[in-house]
Amino acid sequence: MEKDEEGYPLSWSRILIDPIGVVQTKAVGPEIRQKGALSTIILRQELAAAVEGLDEFSHAFILFWMHEIPPAERRIVKTHPRGRRDLPFLGVFATRTPHRPNPIGLTLVEIVKVEGHVLTVRNLDAFDGTPVLDIKPFDPWDATDQARVPAWWRRLELERAARSE
Amino acid sequence: MEKDEEGYPLSWSRILIDPIGVVQTKAVGPEIRQKGALSTIILRQELAAAVEGLDEFSHAFILFWMHEIPPAERRIVKTHPRGRRDLPFLGVFATRTPHRPNPIGLTLVEIVKVEGHVLTVRNLDAFDGTPVLDIKPFDPWDATDQARVPAWWRRLELERAARSE
Repeated sequence: MEKDEEGYPLSWSRILIDPIGVVQTKAVGPEIRQKGALSTIILRQELAAAVEGLDEFSHAFILFWMHEIPPAERRIVKTHPRGRRDLPFLGVFATRTPHRPNPIGLTLVEIVKVEGHVLTVRNLDAFDGTPVLDIKPFDPWDATDQARVPAWWRRLELERAARSE
Repeated sequence: MEKDEEGYPLSWSRILIDPIGVVQTKAVGPEIRQKGALSTIILRQELAAAVEGLDEFSHAFILFWMHEIPPAERRIVKTHPRGRRDLPFLGVFATRTPHRPNPIGLTLVEIVKVEGHVLTVRNLDAFDGTPVLDIKPFDPWDATDQARVPAWWRRLELERAARSE
């Protein structure tokens, strides 16, 4: 494998990404995590044809760039899930923290409506103005019913269930 | 929302991404899709701590950059799934084609081994030398058991099942 001037493999060179669109939502702060919330994705006009047929899927993954994460927080390598010191101190890639080297968000949303270059989706936990990188229809190959998760994750899940009772 | 010189919202400005690592595999061509195939992900050395705890999850999503897609193929907006003209002509965001504006790959893999900055995973359909952008542990929130998929997708799935019988 070829190396660059600094000795990294060439394929580690920087990658330039042009967003395909942007999120619009009235939700602010923690409201973006509210179950059932609707958001709009405004695609670049020239990409309207690229969503034709998406409405035949009920769900899609939205990949977005969490642009509000400051550079210093992208250098964090270990963290407590949800910032909770009563949970283990883990590598950021063992958690879903937004504080990660490349703050790419990945959320499964419900597709509500596709109208030209404007999409309406449910459960997208992204702030207003968030750049969207890609949209991928969800199919059963994206999931497994044999997932094993750590004890700390099951504990968070039990707490969440108790809150919503 | 502020606009740039060309009238796009500012958050559509280009995004710079530094890969976190690179894929190593002996599989070439269509072999990369072989069920059960093992791949290695070599992270940047300084990110070894960032995978601590990942091995407590059985599965993770790997986000990678399909660097072999030439620029012209990133301008395709409609396509036939798998290039098959007997299937409908659809927007690229209604398919999982690698020919999309931002060729980011998203694959659910099984985590086999985590040793320092080297990960062994199963079922990563990425070529040798592919830059890796992010790693996210899989949890049940990433899936739905109520997914609706189009008729063309179910047809592909039936064909796949018939082949593996």
